[in-house]
Amino acid sequence: MTAIPGKPGSGELTEVPEPALADGSVLVDALLLGICGTDLEVIEHGLGNQPPGEERLILGHESLGRVLEAPAGTGLEPGDLVAGIVRHPDPVPCPACARGEADFCRNGLYTERGIRKRHGFGAEQWRVDPGFAVEVPAELGDLGVLVEPGSDVAKVWEQVEMIGSRSWYEPATALITGAGPIGLLAALLGVQRGLEVYVLDQMEEGVKPSLVRDLGARYVTSLDQVGEQVDVAIECTGVGALAYGAARLLAPAGVLCLIGISHREAELSVAYEALNRELVMKNAAIVGSVNAARRHFVDAVDALLEADRDWLGRLITRRVPLTRWQDALDRSPDDVKVVVDLQG
Amino acid sequence: MTAIPGKPGSGELTEVPEPALADGSVLVDALLLGICGTDLEVIEHGLGNQPPGEERLILGHESLGRVLEAPAGTGLEPGDLVAGIVRHPDPVPCPACARGEADFCRNGLYTERGIRKRHGFGAEQWRVDPGFAVEVPAELGDLGVLVEPGSDVAKVWEQVEMIGSRSWYEPATALITGAGPIGLLAALLGVQRGLEVYVLDQMEEGVKPSLVRDLGARYVTSLDQVGEQVDVAIECTGVGALAYGAARLLAPAGVLCLIGISHREAELSVAYEALNRELVMKNAAIVGSVNAARRHFVDAVDALLEADRDWLGRLITRRVPLTRWQDALDRSPDDVKVVVDLQG
Repeated sequence: MTAIPGKPGSGELTEVPEPALADGSVLVDALLLGICGTDLEVIEHGLGNQPPGEERLILGHESLGRVLEAPAGTGLEPGDLVAGIVRHPDPVPCPACARGEADFCRNGLYTERGIRKRHGFGAEQWRVDPGFAVEVPAELGDLGVLVEPGSDVAKVWEQVEMIGSRSWYEPATALITGAGPIGLLAALLGVQRGLEVYVLDQMEEGVKPSLVRDLGARYVTSLDQVGEQVDVAIECTGVGALAYGAARLLAPAGVLCLIGISHREAELSVAYEALNRELVMKNAAIVGSVNAARRHFVDAVDALLEADRDWLGRLITRRVPLTRWQDALDRSPDDVKVVVDLQG
Repeated sequence: MTAIPGKPGSGELTEVPEPALADGSVLVDALLLGICGTDLEVIEHGLGNQPPGEERLILGHESLGRVLEAPAGTGLEPGDLVAGIVRHPDPVPCPACARGEADFCRNGLYTERGIRKRHGFGAEQWRVDPGFAVEVPAELGDLGVLVEPGSDVAKVWEQVEMIGSRSWYEPATALITGAGPIGLLAALLGVQRGLEVYVLDQMEEGVKPSLVRDLGARYVTSLDQVGEQVDVAIECTGVGALAYGAARLLAPAGVLCLIGISHREAELSVAYEALNRELVMKNAAIVGSVNAARRHFVDAVDALLEADRDWLGRLITRRVPLTRWQDALDRSPDDVKVVVDLQG
């Protein structure tokens, strides 16, 4: 699975060389690869880059594989399940990267597997540095492919809690906008924290409403249905009206975390003022979040272990074999997470 | 100085009774009272309320007075300079109020001196509970009237630092929009922290540009003149275009604190998306801030003590005697802080 970033239609199944030793000392047999909107962005919309000097980028950043070879002392053994960390710091790291927070990189010189200047996990085998391999407990099995999106969500909750704790913080309610994989995993972590969770999406029935309800959360199709202020909001769609509406639903000292990426451009001025006033008068916060550090991957493993396996399994709504990987890019409204079976 | 909140033109100099013992055991001879936009909001635009059962509200929340009588054990003695804390929790406090964070009140049942259901400091004498009196070192003298606006700004910097510290936090640059008293004090605290500070306002010359330059900060009249990303932004105007522009100038992991209150209403949707995307991709945060707790008043005293007294003195651009207190409500473009001399 490779593409020329930014060249629409360039996605192809191509022969790739053996994974480079420079990628890391741990050799991994690829099992599953999750597909998300970012992959489409890379192929069709010019996000990301090839590794320097190469024509094509191996795609894929949501990984699950089985260790084939690992040097002694790495803590990994053949047979172990692993997921790979996506973002790597520049060899000359910024101060945030230097303390293990490449997810908060300040100088923008990071690389990302399958996205930016570094090959991804969409091949039959891949290599990884042990510092960038997260062990996935065997009992999670295929669900380990949810560790990477889970890490993004673990980071979101960590940020919400850090920012919430600037004053008294005992949230009771949360609103998640968007019932895709990120939204549903965000809802899972909210329920795990004992919160009353609302999840908003468009479908009146089908997979998403039932996944929300089976989690013990409330499914809504309009912000009007929320009917109360929320202590935490996590915006996973990038739709301006939802981000704005979620901000206005915040309770005093509430926190809105943005994780959905918007694409439209427009200038604001007067229109921003109503929101501004509310944030001030409520001491409320909005924080943006992108990417995840190693600790967030570890948190994600813990959250997945604590969750109902059947429910998690239902998040994976479609598996496509490697030979038909491009089918994974077309999602139906009932699709949550589509994965590519790299052994299929 | 009293008014009927929300009744335009109701501001008058009226006879008021001796301050009620219920206001506190410390009797204070009023010296100065700072005037800010909130006072105008109370008189003309319906912000705030009278104390229950009373027709008129004694105005004023930026206080400086000299203790006349204080019971033993309060830590206060006759002759001490004091400023009063503005917000008081409800007798049945919310969890935030219960831990001394009425500035983060969750249930909205707080009262505020001179604003909401509690008489202010705009009288020849006032009483205060020792827990709501902040001692002002004698060496600050009249500058102690800046402690209350200083406390709002101390809270802003505290919030910025708490939120900034969710990841590596060593800010180098700050942008302050608005060179009023709040903006200039915010700039002061930024300079005290060793930051390169930009302050934006409209005047091309006059008091404000010179106050900014004499602080060692850079005065700009357009965001285009900032010319670099900023780690911290503090928005003190409530003007949507500036808040929005400041958010877009944030560096990765930057923090924008909103303290200016906007008044215009409009719905957002697409227009919000460009900002949304930037916040996500930069892991940046926006936080609203209103009011200040006791610790922020104490921080304000420390910051004022550390500052150049002459510079601070220049912030007080006009003193009006009590008999002409309404003149303080009309501000010229060169006015920074106008105070009422309650002895005059």
